[in-house]
Order: sequence, then structure tokens, then C-alpha cells
Amino acid sequence: MAPTLTMQAALLGLSEFWAARGCAVVQPYNTEVGAGTMNPATFLRVLGPEPWSVGYVEPSVRPDDSRYGDNPNRLQTHTQYQVILKPEPGNPQELYLESLVALGIDVAAHDIRFVEDNWESPALGAWGLGWEVWLDGQEITQFTYFQQAGGIVLDPPATEITYGMERILMALHGIDHFTDIPYADGVTYGELFAQAEYEWSTFYLDTADVELLRRQLGELEAEARRLIGLALPIPAYSQILKCSHTFNVLDARGAMGTTERATAFASMRRLAHDVAELWRDKREELGFPLGRADAADAAPTVAATPAAGDGPRTFFLELGVEELPAADADQARSTLAAAVAEALAATDLGHGAVTVVGTPRRLIATVADVDPVEPQRTVVVRGPKVKAAFDADGNPTKAAEGFARSRGTTVDALTRVVEKGEEHLAFETAGGGRTAAEVLAEVVPAALGKIRFGKNMRWRPGSDLAFSRPVRWLVALLGDDVVPTAWAGLAAGRETRLFRSTGEPTATLASAESAVATLEEHGLVPDPAARRDQVVGGATALAEAEGGTVDVERWARLVDEVVDLVEAPTPVLGSFDPAHLALPPEVLTAVMSKHQRYLPVTDADGALLPHFVTVANGSCDSAVVRRGNEAVISARYADAAFFVARDRETPIADLAAGLATISFDSRLGSVRDRVDRMAATALDLAKAVDAEPAVRDVVGEAVPLAKFDQASQMVMEMTSLAGTMARYYGADAGLSPAVVTAIAEAELPRAAGDEVPGTLAGALLSLADRLDLITALFAVGAEPTGSADPYGLRRAARGVVLVTMSGVDPALDRFSVRAGLAAAAAHLPVEVAEDLVGRIEPFVRRRFEQTLLDQGHRHDLVQAALLHADRPAQVRAALADLTAAVGTERFTLVADALKRADRLVGDTDRSALPRVDPSLFDDPTEGALLAALEQVEAADAAGSVAGFLAAAEPLATALNACLDTVMVMADDEAVRANRLALLTRVAATGADVVAWSEVED
Amino acid sequence: MAPTLTMQAALLGLSEFWAARGCAVVQPYNTEVGAGTMNPATFLRVLGPEPWSVGYVEPSVRPDDSRYGDNPNRLQTHTQYQVILKPEPGNPQELYLESLVALGIDVAAHDIRFVEDNWESPALGAWGLGWEVWLDGQEITQFTYFQQAGGIVLDPPATEITYGMERILMALHGIDHFTDIPYADGVTYGELFAQAEYEWSTFYLDTADVELLRRQLGELEAEARRLIGLALPIPAYSQILKCSHTFNVLDARGAMGTTERATAFASMRRLAHDVAELWRDKREELGFPLGRADAADAAPTVAATPAAGDGPRTFFLELGVEELPAADADQARSTLAAAVAEALAATDLGHGAVTVVGTPRRLIATVADVDPVEPQRTVVVRGPKVKAAFDADGNPTKAAEGFARSRGTTVDALTRVVEKGEEHLAFETAGGGRTAAEVLAEVVPAALGKIRFGKNMRWRPGSDLAFSRPVRWLVALLGDDVVPTAWAGLAAGRETRLFRSTGEPTATLASAESAVATLEEHGLVPDPAARRDQVVGGATALAEAEGGTVDVERWARLVDEVVDLVEAPTPVLGSFDPAHLALPPEVLTAVMSKHQRYLPVTDADGALLPHFVTVANGSCDSAVVRRGNEAVISARYADAAFFVARDRETPIADLAAGLATISFDSRLGSVRDRVDRMAATALDLAKAVDAEPAVRDVVGEAVPLAKFDQASQMVMEMTSLAGTMARYYGADAGLSPAVVTAIAEAELPRAAGDEVPGTLAGALLSLADRLDLITALFAVGAEPTGSADPYGLRRAARGVVLVTMSGVDPALDRFSVRAGLAAAAAHLPVEVAEDLVGRIEPFVRRRFEQTLLDQGHRHDLVQAALLHADRPAQVRAALADLTAAVGTERFTLVADALKRADRLVGDTDRSALPRVDPSLFDDPTEGALLAALEQVEAADAAGSVAGFLAAAEPLATALNACLDTVMVMADDEAVRANRLALLTRVAATGADVVAWSEVED
Repeated sequence: MAPTLTMQAALLGLSEFWAARGCAVVQPYNTEVGAGTMNPATFLRVLGPEPWSVGYVEPSVRPDDSRYGDNPNRLQTHTQYQVILKPEPGNPQELYLESLVALGIDVAAHDIRFVEDNWESPALGAWGLGWEVWLDGQEITQFTYFQQAGGIVLDPPATEITYGMERILMALHGIDHFTDIPYADGVTYGELFAQAEYEWSTFYLDTADVELLRRQLGELEAEARRLIGLALPIPAYSQILKCSHTFNVLDARGAMGTTERATAFASMRRLAHDVAELWRDKREELGFPLGRADAADAAPTVAATPAAGDGPRTFFLELGVEELPAADADQARSTLAAAVAEALAATDLGHGAVTVVGTPRRLIATVADVDPVEPQRTVVVRGPKVKAAFDADGNPTKAAEGFARSRGTTVDALTRVVEKGEEHLAFETAGGGRTAAEVLAEVVPAALGKIRFGKNMRWRPGSDLAFSRPVRWLVALLGDDVVPTAWAGLAAGRETRLFRSTGEPTATLASAESAVATLEEHGLVPDPAARRDQVVGGATALAEAEGGTVDVERWARLVDEVVDLVEAPTPVLGSFDPAHLALPPEVLTAVMSKHQRYLPVTDADGALLPHFVTVANGSCDSAVVRRGNEAVISARYADAAFFVARDRETPIADLAAGLATISFDSRLGSVRDRVDRMAATALDLAKAVDAEPAVRDVVGEAVPLAKFDQASQMVMEMTSLAGTMARYYGADAGLSPAVVTAIAEAELPRAAGDEVPGTLAGALLSLADRLDLITALFAVGAEPTGSADPYGLRRAARGVVLVTMSGVDPALDRFSVRAGLAAAAAHLPVEVAEDLVGRIEPFVRRRFEQTLLDQGHRHDLVQAALLHADRPAQVRAALADLTAAVGTERFTLVADALKRADRLVGDTDRSALPRVDPSLFDDPTEGALLAALEQVEAADAAGSVAGFLAAAEPLATALNACLDTVMVMADDEAVRANRLALLTRVAATGADVVAWSEVED
Repeated sequence: MAPTLTMQAALLGLSEFWAARGCAVVQPYNTEVGAGTMNPATFLRVLGPEPWSVGYVEPSVRPDDSRYGDNPNRLQTHTQYQVILKPEPGNPQELYLESLVALGIDVAAHDIRFVEDNWESPALGAWGLGWEVWLDGQEITQFTYFQQAGGIVLDPPATEITYGMERILMALHGIDHFTDIPYADGVTYGELFAQAEYEWSTFYLDTADVELLRRQLGELEAEARRLIGLALPIPAYSQILKCSHTFNVLDARGAMGTTERATAFASMRRLAHDVAELWRDKREELGFPLGRADAADAAPTVAATPAAGDGPRTFFLELGVEELPAADADQARSTLAAAVAEALAATDLGHGAVTVVGTPRRLIATVADVDPVEPQRTVVVRGPKVKAAFDADGNPTKAAEGFARSRGTTVDALTRVVEKGEEHLAFETAGGGRTAAEVLAEVVPAALGKIRFGKNMRWRPGSDLAFSRPVRWLVALLGDDVVPTAWAGLAAGRETRLFRSTGEPTATLASAESAVATLEEHGLVPDPAARRDQVVGGATALAEAEGGTVDVERWARLVDEVVDLVEAPTPVLGSFDPAHLALPPEVLTAVMSKHQRYLPVTDADGALLPHFVTVANGSCDSAVVRRGNEAVISARYADAAFFVARDRETPIADLAAGLATISFDSRLGSVRDRVDRMAATALDLAKAVDAEPAVRDVVGEAVPLAKFDQASQMVMEMTSLAGTMARYYGADAGLSPAVVTAIAEAELPRAAGDEVPGTLAGALLSLADRLDLITALFAVGAEPTGSADPYGLRRAARGVVLVTMSGVDPALDRFSVRAGLAAAAAHLPVEVAEDLVGRIEPFVRRRFEQTLLDQGHRHDLVQAALLHADRPAQVRAALADLTAAVGTERFTLVADALKRADRLVGDTDRSALPRVDPSLFDDPTEGALLAALEQVEAADAAGSVAGFLAAAEPLATALNACLDTVMVMADDEAVRANRLALLTRVAATGADVVAWSEVED
């Protein structure tokens, strides 16, 4: 690293670097933009087939990141260096690493990693897949394969590299406040920009004129629309950028409610789409002045087919990719194993075990003992029927001759087969016998083509091929030979790639048998299990050296992820200032595990120690890596400590009042208004479920303070800590433990799999919160549509049923969804349509159903139990009983009987049937049935499925006995009606227990 | 020149160059700005004492320059590279030239000149003095010493260098359309920006929403004001920039009238001032984080004083400056000659002739035969009176002792002198005898300090010294010795500077006697007369070689200017496409002489030939210089031809109608409305002066078309051609010659010294135009205040009197200013106050007076003639008569007599006097006087001063005779009253001729 690298030298250096690689260097845009992506040199130019490579500086304005220049890492204007490469040059990651070298960064010493990060701009209708680039744990670059812009699929896709210049400079100089970055010789960043940071922060956060901005936002949108109408995409796009900035300022002022946000995004997205379309069309009209780059590459030249070998050899397949996301790496390995096995099974080639390993950069399948050739066999091809093959004179028809010709033979040479009793002409030929190389040449694309991911991307011009990340090399060896195959535009060879930053970048694999060993000799650890051992072993050893341990079980998912973030784990221990241990442990671990993928180190009692383990990729200078990571976490903890300290200075009543400044929706008011409604609903619910007075007191005390921590700095910074911080701040403020718990539990469950409230008071707050959210947004017409659920109403509905079903308190058994919705609706500040609750119920029921299915319940039993969808606690009980009973004799007996009775009554108008008249019975089984029926009816066991089954067993037996004897459809109409009335009553006994008809046999 | 220099390479190269010289390199601003100056990195940072050096690219948006990308040189967004050096480094011009070398420009081959150009931003309250830098006639850079920003004086001043990148690249590559500039390797400027040029041009010229922009302008101003109130200068300044851009868009849309423009500028200027003040105060509060650069330099160390020489030697003084404007160089030479002579005269040093020569870069004074020492003499200092020097006892008083002590002696040693008859104590000492070097050391600063310019600038930190341009070196030699003196922070030495770009940059001057010759040996031509000879001789010879000539007499002023644009004239002949000769010659010569300072080449009949002569500075590669200049003029003529062709396609009626789209003022309507009023007024005037029917017809036909050419492209491009183009376009359209002339003459006179209309119809249109302008703007309260006259009303008033006085037609003798103003006022579309004409009359009178004084008339005669200010033609006649008569016996006789009569009547109430009663006469001279009086009264010669003088001569004689005999103030009251009445009638005979009392003896 050059110790004197200044910001300006770095910016000029990047421009020189990319200019030398064919990029045009252009200027930042002359209206405020949030990111380099918004510059038309990116947004418009990535559209269409024209090649486009460009680099530029972009001072990026994020009003929301305003911190008056106080925060060491957060600036309202930070400096991006933006590069677009279209089409992607085949080695953009390598070029990027070269650019870091050009800046003087020792890429071999540092831990530089490509960590999954998928990018989306809701305002621009743009998205792409890619990574954050980490330099010793610090995110320094966003690296994206742009897939869409303005909702238009990009062909070819473009590579976008966005350098975060302040981060890079701070990391390189080990600086802990942006103001200390050397900007130019003798001038610091702070000297140039601190005053602007302060003033703009004041403007964005405190003084920008909200009413004026709102009006401007509307005017800018209208103007953009008008200019689109005039076919002026460039000026129109400028208006959209101004919209976006205006929106961002409003947002920073806390003036953008949830629904306004969605509306504004949707509007900008539509405009961006129309502009993009207009631009693309205009470029087409102009005949694409810069040329076209959307033609597919020429087909790759595959290796020559080797001669068949002498005996069984190993088959080695390696697909080289750019860093797969951890979850994708794992999934790809499973898919590949199955796909290879399946593709081989479709051949006759003899082979041994299929083994799959891999890292984020490679998927490796090995097949042991592959026979040199496929066995010989006869292949019979069926021709026309014999009776249609010859005419009356016995001469071959045209059909017969055609068939023979198509097989390259004559009718005389054909044989005959019988198929489905009909004789056909047939052609016999010798099949199989292909060499293993020939077979494998087909197996490779077949197997690789089966790999699927949740999110896929394209990268090659003129190709629809999509994969999790770009595929860069392909090795396919059978023993010593290259298999003559290709996939994704890559011919298979024997050259593999090693670590990018250190030593040799590539290696030649001599044979399939030695391939994995060769990779290992070069320091790679292809086997994830081996990597896991190294991570766990290394981390534990490092922790132990500090007298601590790593709770591998608790952090199992994180360990799994870390294993697939590296090709060769190098655990490095780092430490932080023990003073930060005063922060809530949730804050500490959230930063470590979520943000940094560090393993926390704990003492014997599970308390955090001031250490962490990060896992670097391959060899590096541990001291450099440790120092870098320590600087990152130290800055993050300093931020958190700063936030928590500021929060603790603020009385929680002030925080609660501060919710009034957080806009929720123009019609629905602030978050404070929402909490007030939620308070009223919670008290209604407490009454409705007949909660004990003590609980009601807790609810009464807690609700005015609900969500108060959402006005805290710490929660604004890390929203996942909502509720958690309330627990700390509430306790500090001297609230009773029960009240603190209720406030904290109001946030639960946050997501699928999260815990639910453990107290009735907490449950009632949680329910009130979610019921208010759902009713409010349905009331203003913002219910989810399609896959869009911007307000998380589905998650809220799921929360309602999970909380009610939790069984935390018997009172919740008395909770009715309908009544709860009605209670919430009654407090809404907007006009409520009469059918509001009716419209919401099916929505909640669908989420209920999905929740239960997700929990693994049988589909039919779920349907049956959902008879009680209005009372989730009852559904839980019914489903438990059903699950226990289904398959038992008693269950089958009762269920079948009830269904049989119901089926026999069929379409008959049940209300028109007479009362059962025993005098019309003409068989004793009828009387017995009535007696059994009356016993069940008297038992009133509908509350419990188990109870009902016990009670109804005799009834079922009696029913079956009766139906074995009497015919329901008697000739005598009165008798028939009497019998139908009896059956109707039988069927009705179970009607409010579960929906029997849903239960499958 | 590197043949492959691309725009991006040039921009990066400049950043590297200036970064290496200590500049911070920052980014273009993220809101639209019209120039790099507006970036806060210039506007705010030049304020206050902090040092600041910065370089950056600035894409500069000039909506008014929108040309759809068609015009080869005009872009709505062009690229500036902006450099600020504060304090100025002492050699900014040299650094600038080095930067050109760094770009690969061969500065020795090209003609690079610094041509006066003073910069002002009316919106920002900023100004500075400096130059355009010309590269072979092409303006490629603006070089300014910034003096004020936001109306605040800059201390230290800053050097601003603004490179016009497109111009530089086009000049270097010999490209004739900006779209062909290589932007990056393989990509042209047009490929990147042509579409944007087209779309933004459409937006700015045709479709931007005027109503919306107007509203936004108001909102932005209000927001800027509010943010100033909140002490946020940076966000406030951003709003001002947005104001400015919004204003520029409105202007490009033709929606900014004259008064709105002035109002908007005033408002922005106020805001800019307040922001500047706020910023400066904030920086002071912060303790000027970047330090202070406003301390004065240490005093320079002057040379040791040499011993006196043996005999007379020459004194040589050279003041080295950065390029003086041509007029300043001329003026400085005159001042210096006088100042040196005067400063020497204040000494006793004997010397010969003082000679002054100089170039734009040096002022040289030579004094021949300077004596080696001042002659010896006795100096007597007067003390107290002797009578006050001794007490009664003869002892010295305190006063005497104090005087002796102050002279370092005792009372005994004092002598005595008699002054004004009173004896004083006196001190005698030996004076003079200083060496010439000692004397000249004082003469130099005294003489240089006397040089004054119309516009002065400061450049040194901590110094109030102002000069036309910075002073850079000082040579002062007496014979072989350096004179021990200093001025402007420069110690005198013997090192002079030569041409910057070629050969040695400096030379050492051995002696005063050889100094000029040494300069000449190095190719300089210090003597302007010699340069003039070279210019005239060289240009003539070049023209003759092409069979033409240069009309040196016609272009005398231009030749004078050219002489002072170079240090050594190198005339270079250039040619242009003869096809351009089809353009009106006024267009061709305006471009050559005004824009390019080329001498036109004409044939024997005075018709233009397709050649020109430019005068380069010093040695250069003539081929390169010719090529460059030819490219410049070719582009300019191509522009002009394009405009003229487009204009000729437009019917003049359409042009006339098009005036409706040029806004004049929101209250006063469009230019079309103004022309319509002017038409009505012109017809009224024609009637009022009783113009012949033929003239009236011409007026009637011409007025609807007045100013039609102002809607033409050519006039919009070069406003000085208004009227001239009307002549061509009108003739093309088949208008009668008289009508065409009237339309063309309506624009006359354009400025002081310009011709006036030659026909009555033209004069009436001209008058109508000016009367409408004056009355309209007074009516809306936009009369000139202080030195501000944004609408040119003073010029208009001057036009009114010049036209009326022109004597082109006797009808104009009947023109009354008051009646004309009333006629114009009657057609105004706004409410007209009763006193409007009354308020305007003194304003016109003041301009009238100034005009006559400027013409060189005697002040007293002007006052006397202005008795007829309402009828300028009469003033002209009276003034001519007065001028002819003044000093003649007759004039003196009459004037004295009239004044004498008037003086004798004095304060007497003249209305209360009786009619003259001859019966009360008691001397024959009284009767004779009455008889003479009655003759004059009967002659009614008031119409002509000469006539009156002739008629009044006997009266004057009679008056004198009478007064010699009779005493006016007779004891008899009736007699006295009768005599006073007689005198009153005498005085009254001249009262309506001229204001006799104003005439001085």
C-alpha cells in the first residue's frame, strides 16, 4: 500500500486504470443522484445492444445518511467510483483486483472476498446479482451483474463495479473517521467537506421544507411524464432523478409514510420504465451508433475425442464459477450429485460411486471406476405396420420404402417386431459401444443443465443461459484425457484456476484421479466437510487461546455459511475494546454474525468475550487481516455505543412521543397514531378474551409505550433490534419487568421461525399491532397483490395465527380473528367499508393454511381443522387431535360413517325434511341409531376432536348396522323422508367438530 | 501536439498537471451550473483569507447556447476545466502555458496571446480582470484575476483559469464540428453527447414549461432566503445555483423580459452576497481551518547603493507586467512619461530627455544624461520669530530651545532669516549632493505610483496596490548599476523577461544605455511606433501579394489596438472560402475586426477579398498560425452563412410576427408590442412635425416591420448587426429602398459616435423607438439609478437629441421633446402618472447637456443654448451661433448690455412695473433707447442668435449711451419705475434667444 495515497490520487488512478482498459471516462451527473448507477451513463447506457464501457466519479447524495459529519463512516455525500463494462469482458473480477493493485493495495496480504449481495433499485426498476467486495471485513465495493434497468431485460447484461472510495481510503490508511482521509497533499477530507456535511445534514434532517418538497415531487413527476410524451428521454430522465432526490429528502425528513413510499416508488418505476423504453427505441432508430454487442460467441472448440481406454478410470468434472452465494453452493452440490447420477443412469455406461464436493468458486463431481466403453446392445426401431407395408401384390408400399430409406437400408433388409399384438416392420442396429468419453461428453451438459437456483442471472451476450453467478471454466477429465464436451460456451479442458490474489492463478490437472489432490496441493479445500472441520477446529483453538470458546451449535447456520464463503478457511482471531461489552449482547452478536459473519467468542457461562473469529480465504497476512477487521468492528461498535448512549440520554416517554415524527401514511397518520390505535385495540382484546385484571393492568401500562424504541437511534440503525432495545431501555427507565416484557414481546414474531410472545400481555400487544396493521392497510386499499406485499401484511397475518395458537395462555383460546379484526377496525381513522372484516378473513385464512402446511401438517387435516379458522387456538387443538387420531380404527370408523351419512343425504333439501318420527321406523337398527345419536348430541363433545371421536364411535357402529339392514330410499315417501332426516342428524353431529369431508382416506 | 489526444486524456492530463502543482482535484457540482466559477469550490472558496488551490472539470450548461447539436461550435453543455489559485502563485500565466505543453501543445509554434477580457457575473455579484487566451485566434481559455465575489472584495484575490475544452480539442485536431472530437479511444464526442445535445436543446428552446419554471424560480429564491436565515450558506448557495439555471432556461425559452431579467439578477445578486457573507463569517468562526494567506510579503531587499559615477549616464526603468489591455498600455505610457518628468523635477538632479516606450508586457522610461550627483545647496529651515525667541532678559525662550533641539543644535548656532518682514530664527544645513542612484531610488516609486487606469485590480495578498494587470518585474539601471529601489513588492534588478514561449525566457541587461538594444536583439520591439510600422508594412505587403490592400486609414483604431496586442508584430496572411463573400460585408468585417482583430483585405474598389491579416506575437510557425486562424474564421463564417441562409428562408412578415415571442417586460409586453407602440408614436410624430405625405407613407409602411431583423438568427447571434441585416433582408423581400432605409435607420444611433438616421422617416422611427423605451420604463419605475442603467435609457435619451439635432430634415426643427414624450406615453399599456413627462424632461436635459459637452462645446454656451432644450434643433442652431459669435465685439456688447439691464432691474417685481411712459423721459438717450428697443421688438429675431445679435447691436449701444447719462435710481419714484420698466423690456428682448446670464465673460 502506498502510504500517501490520497483520495484525489485514488480517483485519478482509477480513471487512468479504466481508461487504459478501454473505458470512456465521463463526469459525475449534474443533478443530485443517490448512486453512480443513476447517472445516465449507467442507467440509460446499459440498455440495448450497444457496447459501453465507462468509468466515472460520482459524489452520491444520501440524505438519510446525514449525520452532521459526526459519524465516522456515514456521510450524506460519499464518493463512488463507478465502472460499467458491457458486455462483461470475461474477467471483470480479475480486472477489478488489478485495479486495487493499481491503487497500491497488496491483494495477497489482505483478505479480499466476494460476498453475496444482490442489488435492486425499486425506484428505477433495476436489479442485478453480485457481491459486496470485502477488504478485511470492510465492504469497499459493490460488484453487480446488471440484469434489468427500467424493468427492461438487459441484453447483453452489464457488469457494474462501484467503489466506495471513503471506505477504501479509510481501510488503507487505518483511519477511524472520514474527516481524516487525506484528500490531496496537505488537505484532509474533513477540511474540504466537513462543513458541507454539517450544513447539508441540518438541511436534510431538520429544515428542508416538507410542503415545498411534496409539491415539487408532484411537479417533477408530471414534468417527467410530459417529457416522455414529447419523446425526450434524456431530459425526462433528469426529472426522474430529481424526483428521486426529492423523495430521498422527504424520507430523511421523516415525511414519507409507508404507503406514500410505495406509491412514489411505483410512480418513479413506471416513469423509469417508459424512459428506458423510449431511449432504447431512439437508439434503435439511430441505428445503434456504437454498434451491437449482443451476438452470441462462436461455439467453443471441444477437445478431440480420445480413444477408448483399457480399463476403468475416474471421471472428474469441475465447473468453475464466480463466487456462488453460500446457500447456492450448497444447493448446487446436491443438485449436481443427483443430476450426474441421473444422466449416467440414462446411459449404459458402467461406473462406480458419484461424489460431489465444491467451494464457492467450483463445483466438482467425481465418478469412480468408469468403464472404458458402453456395452454393445441391439437397438430395434419400429416401422409401419406390416399390413400397411405391402400392397395386395406383396409389393412394399411407399410407407415401407420410406421407412427403409430413412434408415439407410432397403425393405428386404428389415426385420419384424410385434407390438401391442400388431406386427410391424423393424430396423435392427447395433447400439451402445460408445466410448466413455463419448458418453460423458453428453452427460456433462445434461447434468450441468439441471442445476437450478432460486435467483439466476445471465451474463453472456446473446445467450439465455442463466446461473447463480457466471461460469468461467470447465474441466472434464476421464483418466488422463479431456472429455470432448462444452457447456455454457466453455470447452472442457484440464486447466483449473486457483486463488486469484496469491501465487499461480491457474494449474493444469494431469488426470481425473489426481485432480482433487492437485487442488489440495495448491491449498484449496474442495470438500466442505473438511472446510467445516477447519473452521470449527481453528476457531475453537483461537478462542481457547483467549480462554474462551465458540458456541458452534448456536452458530451452526453461520458456520455453514462461512464454510461456503471461502475456498480454504483461515480463521483469524480479532479483538475489540472490552468497553464495548457494556453494549447489549444482542447488539454485539448481531453486528458480528449478521453484518460481519464473525463467530462470537464466549466464556464458560456463555458471556461474550471481547474477541471474534473471522475466517479469511486462503493464505493472507493475518496481522493485516486482523487489523482491518478490528478496525471495522471497532467502528461499528463505536457507532452502536454512540447510538445507545444518545438513546439512554433520552427519556423513553420522549422516545414514545417521538414516534409522532415518524410518518406512517398520510391517511393513517404517524407511527405514534398507529401505536395509539394499537393501544385501544389491545385493551379491547384483553376484555374480549377476559384477561385477568393483573394482565389488563400490564397491557394498560405497556401499550402507550409500545414501539417506543423505534424512535431510538439504535433501532433506526438496526431495525432487527426493535423490541430488544425496548427491553434494555425499558428496564433502565424503571418499568416493571412485566411491562418491559410486554413491550418487547409486542414485536414478536418478527419472521417465520421467530419466537412468539411468552406472556398474555405480550401476546395481546402483538395481536393488536398486527390487527391494526392489517385492517388499516386493507381499509386504505393497500392489500397485497400478486407477489407484492410491501407492508408485510402476510407476515402480520401469520403472526396473528402463530401468537393465538401458541397456547401461552388459555385466555387466547377465546380469541376470535373476526372479533379481533372488528375491534381493530373500530379504531381506524378512516372510513371503514362494511365488508372490510369479511374481505380480510379469507386473507388471514390463507396465511393460516400456509403456516400450518409450512409446519408440516397434512393438507387434508389442515383443511379439516380450519373449520375453526376464526379461533386459531381451536385449530391447533383440532389439528393435534386429528393428527393423533388419523389412521386409528376409531377415526376411520367415525369419519367414514359421518361421510357415509352425509353422502346418502346428498343434495336433498335438508331443511325441508320432517323431524325424525320414530313411529315410521320399520327396523330396530333405526331405533338403536336414534338412541346412539341422541347420546352423542347430549354429550356435546364438539369442543374436542378426541372427545367427539370417543362419543361418536357407538353412533358410527349403529349407523353402519342400520344401513346394512334398511334401504334409505324406501318406496314410501314418508319413510324415506324420515330416514333421510335421521341421517341428516347423524351427519350434523360432527359438523362443528372438523370438516370431515376434507379428510382423505 | 500529440495527434491522439482525446478529450478524456486531456481532462485527466490537466487534473494530473494541477494536482502535481498542489491543487486539490474535486468534482463537478451536482446541480446544473453555467460555468465552473459557480461551483462552490470556486465561488465560496475564493472568499476569505484561506489559501485554496483547486482544479476540476465542469460540464457547463448554457441553455441559451442550445443548437440541437447542429452548430459546429455551440453546445448547451460544454466542458470547462477550472483552476483556482489563491493566492496567485506569482507565475500563473507561466504555469498555464506549461499546462498547455503538458497537453502536448507546441507553444512555440502557435500564436498564443492574452487578450483583454474582463469578466463579470451579474447574478453572483462577481467580477475580475484578465484575458481570453487565444490559440491562433481561437479563444481557448478565460484567465481572470478574481476581485469580488458576492459583492465582497477578495483578499487575497484569486487567479481563475477556465479552459474551454471543446475549443482546445477542436483547435488541436483541426476539427470543424464538435461532434468529431475524439472523446476516448474509438469514441467520438458526438457518439457520446449528440443525442443529449439534441434533446436538451429541444427542451430548453421549445418545450420547457415556462409557467412551472417561473413558479420554481420564485420558490427557489424564497428557499435560498430562508436557508440564509438559518445560517446554512452551502445549501442556500445550491438554491441560488438552481435559481440561476432556472432563470437561464426561462431566458432560453424567450420568457425573460428586460425588467424581469434585471429584477432576477438583482435578487440573485443579493442572495449571493448574503451567502458569501455568511460563508465568510462561518469560516472565521471555524478559525479559518485552511490557514491564512492574506499576509503581506516581507519587504523586498533592494540592491546596495552604488557609488556616484564619474559623469552623466542613462537611466533605464522597465516595469514588467502581465499583458496590459491595449488602451491601458497606451495610456500608461503617456502617464509614465509625465510622471517621471514630474518626479525628477521635484529634485535638483540634472538630466536629459525622458523617453517612454512599451509593449503590452513592459513600460520603459529612459532618461538621458543623468548627472552623477545632485548639486550642493544650502537648506534653510525657519524657526520661531526672533521676538518670541528671547525673553526680556535676552534668554532663549522654550520655543527657541525646542527648535534648536529638534535640529540637533543649540540656539547659539542658529542664524536668522527675514520672512514677510519678520525676523525668524533659522537653521542652515548643506542640502542636495545626493548621488543620482539615491535620487532615482525615490523617483522610481513616486513616478510608478502615479500611473492610473480606468479599471484596476489587486493581486498581492495583504496589499491594496492596484494596477491594470499584475506587475512582475522591475529593472532600474543607472548606467551599469542597479538603482536601489523597489515598488509593488519588487526590488529593482537587471533581469528582464523575454517571450514566454520561445527561446530564453529572461535576459540580463548590462547597462541602461544598452538595455533597449538588448531587448531588440532578443526580438522585442519596445517602440510602439516601430511596431505600428511593422504592422502596417507587413499587412500591406501581404495584402499586396494577393492583389489587395489594407485600408489602414479606415482601420486605424484597430491597427492601434493590434500594435498594443503584441511585443513584436508578425503579420500572417490567412484566407477564407470566397463563397463566404456572399455574406453582407458588414458581417464579414464585424467578425474580422471586432471578434478576431484581423485586418480585412480589400481590392482597389474597396470590395472585400477572401483574405485577412492577423498579427501574431513574436516568432511562430506561420503555417500553423495561419491554419488555426483560418479554421476559426471559417467556422465563424459558416455559422453566419447558416444563420443568414435560415433567415432568408423566413418571410420578413414572419420575423416581424416572431417579435411577439421575445419577451420585453411582463407589464410592457413583447418586443412586438413595443414595435406596435413605436409605430403609433412614429405616426404621431410625423404628423406633429408636419412631415410630407411621401415621408408619412414611408413611415406607415416601415413601422410595422421595425426591428423585424431582431427575430433573425443572425442578429440574435450578433446584436450589433441589428438594422444592418434589416437592410439586406428587407431588400431581398422587395421592400422599397426608402422603407428599407427607414427600418434600418430606426436602430441608429447605436452608441456614442455612431451615425444618425439620414432620412426623416428613419429619424422618426428612431425617435419613436427611443421615446417609447424611455417613457415605458419610467412609467413602470425602472428609471436609471446611480450608475446603473440596465435598459440603456441614457443612451436612448442621447439618441433622441442627436437625431433631432442632426439637421437631416427641416421638419425635425419642429420636434418637441415634451410633445414627443407625451405622444409616446399616450400609447403605453400601463397607467401613466400625470407627472411622467415632467419627470423625464430633466433626465433628457441632463443627457442633452452631457452630449453637448462631450462634443466639446463650452459649458457656459451649452447652458445658454439649453434654454431651448425642448427643441434640440434649435439648441444646435443657437449653439452654433453662440460659438461663432462669442468673443466678437458685437456679442460682447449685446450680451453685456442685456446682462447689465437685467442686473439693474435686479429683484424688482417686474410685473408690478408700469408701462413705459415716454413723457417721463428726461434725457434724449432714453427716447433713443426706446426707439432702438421697439425696432428690436418689431424684428422678432428670437429665432436666430445671429439675427438677434445684429438686430440688438443698436439697442445695446443705445442702452450703454443712456446709462452713461441717466441714473436709473432717480429720486422721483415714477421716473425710477419708468426707467426700470424700460430696462426690463430691454432685458426681455433676449430672454427667449438664449440664457444670456449663463454666458461667462
